[in-house]
Amino acid sequence: MTSSSPTSTQQADARRGSNAVAHTTVTIEDTFWAPRLQRVRENTLPMMYEQMKLNNYFDSEKRGWKRGMHPIPYVFWETDITKWVEAASLSLATHPDAQLDTLLDKTIEFIRSIQQPDGYLNIWFTEVEPEKRWSNMRDLHELYCAGHLIEAGVAHFQGTGKRSLLDIVSRYADYLDRTFGLEEGKKRGYSGHPEIELALVKLYRVTGEKRYLHLSQYFVDERGKQPHYFDEEARLRGDDPRDFWAQTYEYNQSHVPLREQREVVGHAVRAMYLYSAIADLVKERYDESLFQTGERLWHHLVSKRLYITGGIGSTAKNEGFTEDYDLPNLTAYAESCASIGLAMWNYRLLQLDADSRYADLLERALYNGMLSGISLDGSKYFYVNPLESKGDHHRVGWFKCACCPPNIARTLMSLGQYVYTVSDTDIFTHLYIQGTGELSVGGHNVKVKQETKYPWDGAISLKMTLDEPADFGLNLRIPAWCQAAQLSLNGETIVLDDHLQKGYVRIERRWQSGDQIVLNLAMPVMRVYAHPDVRENSNQVALQRGPLVYCLEGADNAVPLHHIRLPETATLESRFEPELLGGVTVIEGPATVVESEDWSDTLYKTTPPQSHAHTLTAIPYYVWDHRQAGEMCVWISTK
Amino acid sequence: MTSSSPTSTQQADARRGSNAVAHTTVTIEDTFWAPRLQRVRENTLPMMYEQMKLNNYFDSEKRGWKRGMHPIPYVFWETDITKWVEAASLSLATHPDAQLDTLLDKTIEFIRSIQQPDGYLNIWFTEVEPEKRWSNMRDLHELYCAGHLIEAGVAHFQGTGKRSLLDIVSRYADYLDRTFGLEEGKKRGYSGHPEIELALVKLYRVTGEKRYLHLSQYFVDERGKQPHYFDEEARLRGDDPRDFWAQTYEYNQSHVPLREQREVVGHAVRAMYLYSAIADLVKERYDESLFQTGERLWHHLVSKRLYITGGIGSTAKNEGFTEDYDLPNLTAYAESCASIGLAMWNYRLLQLDADSRYADLLERALYNGMLSGISLDGSKYFYVNPLESKGDHHRVGWFKCACCPPNIARTLMSLGQYVYTVSDTDIFTHLYIQGTGELSVGGHNVKVKQETKYPWDGAISLKMTLDEPADFGLNLRIPAWCQAAQLSLNGETIVLDDHLQKGYVRIERRWQSGDQIVLNLAMPVMRVYAHPDVRENSNQVALQRGPLVYCLEGADNAVPLHHIRLPETATLESRFEPELLGGVTVIEGPATVVESEDWSDTLYKTTPPQSHAHTLTAIPYYVWDHRQAGEMCVWISTK
Repeated sequence: MTSSSPTSTQQADARRGSNAVAHTTVTIEDTFWAPRLQRVRENTLPMMYEQMKLNNYFDSEKRGWKRGMHPIPYVFWETDITKWVEAASLSLATHPDAQLDTLLDKTIEFIRSIQQPDGYLNIWFTEVEPEKRWSNMRDLHELYCAGHLIEAGVAHFQGTGKRSLLDIVSRYADYLDRTFGLEEGKKRGYSGHPEIELALVKLYRVTGEKRYLHLSQYFVDERGKQPHYFDEEARLRGDDPRDFWAQTYEYNQSHVPLREQREVVGHAVRAMYLYSAIADLVKERYDESLFQTGERLWHHLVSKRLYITGGIGSTAKNEGFTEDYDLPNLTAYAESCASIGLAMWNYRLLQLDADSRYADLLERALYNGMLSGISLDGSKYFYVNPLESKGDHHRVGWFKCACCPPNIARTLMSLGQYVYTVSDTDIFTHLYIQGTGELSVGGHNVKVKQETKYPWDGAISLKMTLDEPADFGLNLRIPAWCQAAQLSLNGETIVLDDHLQKGYVRIERRWQSGDQIVLNLAMPVMRVYAHPDVRENSNQVALQRGPLVYCLEGADNAVPLHHIRLPETATLESRFEPELLGGVTVIEGPATVVESEDWSDTLYKTTPPQSHAHTLTAIPYYVWDHRQAGEMCVWISTK
Repeated sequence: MTSSSPTSTQQADARRGSNAVAHTTVTIEDTFWAPRLQRVRENTLPMMYEQMKLNNYFDSEKRGWKRGMHPIPYVFWETDITKWVEAASLSLATHPDAQLDTLLDKTIEFIRSIQQPDGYLNIWFTEVEPEKRWSNMRDLHELYCAGHLIEAGVAHFQGTGKRSLLDIVSRYADYLDRTFGLEEGKKRGYSGHPEIELALVKLYRVTGEKRYLHLSQYFVDERGKQPHYFDEEARLRGDDPRDFWAQTYEYNQSHVPLREQREVVGHAVRAMYLYSAIADLVKERYDESLFQTGERLWHHLVSKRLYITGGIGSTAKNEGFTEDYDLPNLTAYAESCASIGLAMWNYRLLQLDADSRYADLLERALYNGMLSGISLDGSKYFYVNPLESKGDHHRVGWFKCACCPPNIARTLMSLGQYVYTVSDTDIFTHLYIQGTGELSVGGHNVKVKQETKYPWDGAISLKMTLDEPADFGLNLRIPAWCQAAQLSLNGETIVLDDHLQKGYVRIERRWQSGDQIVLNLAMPVMRVYAHPDVRENSNQVALQRGPLVYCLEGADNAVPLHHIRLPETATLESRFEPELLGGVTVIEGPATVVESEDWSDTLYKTTPPQSHAHTLTAIPYYVWDHRQAGEMCVWISTK
């Protein structure tokens, strides 16, 4: 942690007890994200609500849950509701909508009706198996549900100013505080699926109640200690702990205490939510060993277990991590929610230390592995985001386990929060998105207006508006993918190398209204190669332009994609296609295609395959699977 | 089926009611196979017997099987005994051993003690669950056990001249004939695991009893008909046929009647044993549709689903076939027993049509995928023969499901049978192995003495000894891997092209004692490429020399094997190393190694990996995993 650590406006506001938070102050007015956010409001949110009604989420009679039913439904299904509440509340913060506001009130009334006199709030364990409350924290997601409920309460309060849900979740959090902890008579448990930890920090930040922060710290500190809580509760249930289906507590990152963990392991979403909470706690109360734990895990992830798309999780088996450099493309799991978690974590790391490596990864996850999770019209979703497809992987309208759709919705509805963070002395610009940010730095109100066609073009203009001239540092991220950046202030060139700090160019001066910065980030087509130990990508290359990772699709390349070879020397061109897939820049270049025709019935030959010329066309990965079903691949054979 | 189809000596002898069979007439006196066969006699057969005693195979008290035990042991474990009896009997045929003979008699007495008054013979269903006899033919392997028992009875008779076991199995076969068939009152069942079909043809051939042939034909014809027997027997048991664990009758090749099958599917060993029976039945009574079925399946296998090692079966999931061109290396199943089955099938196809493509495949399976299954000292076995290893796959001394060890032993003990087949007018030489064959062609006794260092050297000398001059055709296989063969007869060059018939050079003349043929098969190192649709092998090459497929091992190449790149232009040399691994020819050549050192913590870069020079050393695949544990790969990246 450096002394220049920024403080997010959200956090600063929370400390001041204000209701205004960062994401309400950033408007997005571009052609890339704004239409997607509009589709979420127009299509995604209403469709999700319809889906929940269709599934009788709000009608316990029709739902027909009862004791002993088999199979048991997903006991955490209520997070569909709470994530929807969160996404809808975030939408209201910038786009008032009386009808949606009413629907939220009605939904919150339903939630209130479930809350027990002691504050407990969980539909399954209230309606069906009340005696099993807290009996299986390893598997049954009660605290995970609580976490999403709390996040919804905070977002609803921030988006609408209403305390209705915030009060409910505060009562629940008070009950949790009475129930869990080190004190005599309290349970020593914690959640098999992290989420409550980061939610409690959020609740602390809007309410100022320290006990929520302490409870979060308890959950993080207690995790993985011996005797192991999940062993003990299993024995209490009469189960053998060794019968745990996942076979290892690495699955839920409780195999050893957190501060002893050295590798990212297990279920990827669980890991990301837990690591996010670590960063939150370090932010609130600096803790060297916890900070180092996060750093260690981050380094391990980015150097050994990260897909180029910002996807994480190499197998469906544990929805998570496997071995170093094991990054299969066809069978990649790369859950949408895991990329969201990766963005959440890196956004928090940026608040500890404004180092562009975190923003680079945040950007990679948002523009690729997360965004691929939702269709252009906002109506269909990927749960899994492989880097290769034989043509049988498609977005669908809903899932039995529907965690991803509302998670993507709440992420898009909160996109603004990722653009800037602010400390007492500095503004940090992490993302380049056309729109306006209204920020507060050192007591001064500063409006930053970005004009750019990013990610299609690297030219960015930032215009400043201030009530009065003010001294502060403005930091602009120079992405790691950019090899040639140019910057001018009010028409005068600034030498970047003189001003670079951890990947940001910092301009400290007395700023005044009308100051204009022009930043040009060169965006040539790049070839990217994987570490030689990523066996799947041996002799392969990926294409990237700006923050976007590209892929080949059958729709553009009428040959088996694994027959395509891209020579190292081929010159690749990019071209914006306004009519294609909502407007995208495509990459084209000369390649070759190996021929299988003359092999007919032969499986092995003593001569290598012949090949002929082919013009390769690549599209951004995030937009694949919008045309006829066909093959897709991110990694392309070289020859 | 062509008019020139050969008849095997075994079959010819059987028809003549003689006890002498082909494999007794071929002695193997080389430095490649003979020491392996000796190890089987000295080590493998005694160790297997010890293992069976250790596991209380012959002592039902100690075994302690009882009704309702859980988990149920492998109900087909008795085939360990019967395959051992077969292998030991085959050994006695060429190598008399009074002690082994006595042990066989004792074992046969044990088998006799199990036989029921009606002829039925199965240990599990006699000792533990007699009421379940024939209740689950889909899963419980009764007819599979019967098949191996019958093969043992035939081999024991042929190897020792004793009828003790032959009589037992004949009584059992008579009972089976009374039990199964189309006639009123008989069951319409067949075996989930084929094996009985080919065994009954063998029994017919030594006994001349046509009912055994007819029963085999019934099992083949009935398979896969509707209403499906396995559905019906499941309902009789009170089970839902849809609960079949393998989910599809493709698993046991009963999804449709055999004559309608177009693709090799399901469990690989089941498929090979079934297809072997088809060839046997066609041989006995020509049947166009059954012949075409075999041809179709053979073409599908060799053009889409065959490993270069002669291994088959791409996944452990069904121990069998998956999709066309799906031939993963690391996770290849390629069970030793499946390569044995492939050899069995192609040996039978050779008897229908002496086409060298069958012998090529027989040779590929024997020298690679089968032989890798047993250690040089005959004491350890591979069940699974992958084409790539990270260093954690090793031969072991025994398996819980121990089908492979005795199967390899019986295959090695019967190796002689594969060298020649004989028709009324011709001798066919399929394999080149130093030793002597005593054959009968057109009523003449012919001794063929091969001298060769095959497979290390392609120079082969064949010397003929006859009682008196005789007219017949001598056919010598020119392997498909050989691009340059030279032949001389008594010193005079013979132009091959003038004499080639289906891959064999045929010399028809009046042969006399002292005639000598010298065949030279050029054995350069060959590069082999896979069809472009085998994704795993894109941009990869395999090395082969003569019949032997090569691999890289960590022991010879002190770098991660997936870092090695073999340029297309590199000149590869071979060198015989008498002290290495029992004496092998190694391949060496200049390659490069990509460097990972300068990547340190970087997972993705915009420049390709650097590389440096490396001398690549490859060893024959069959002999891998005999030194320190390390990586192995058959396919090598090109660059």
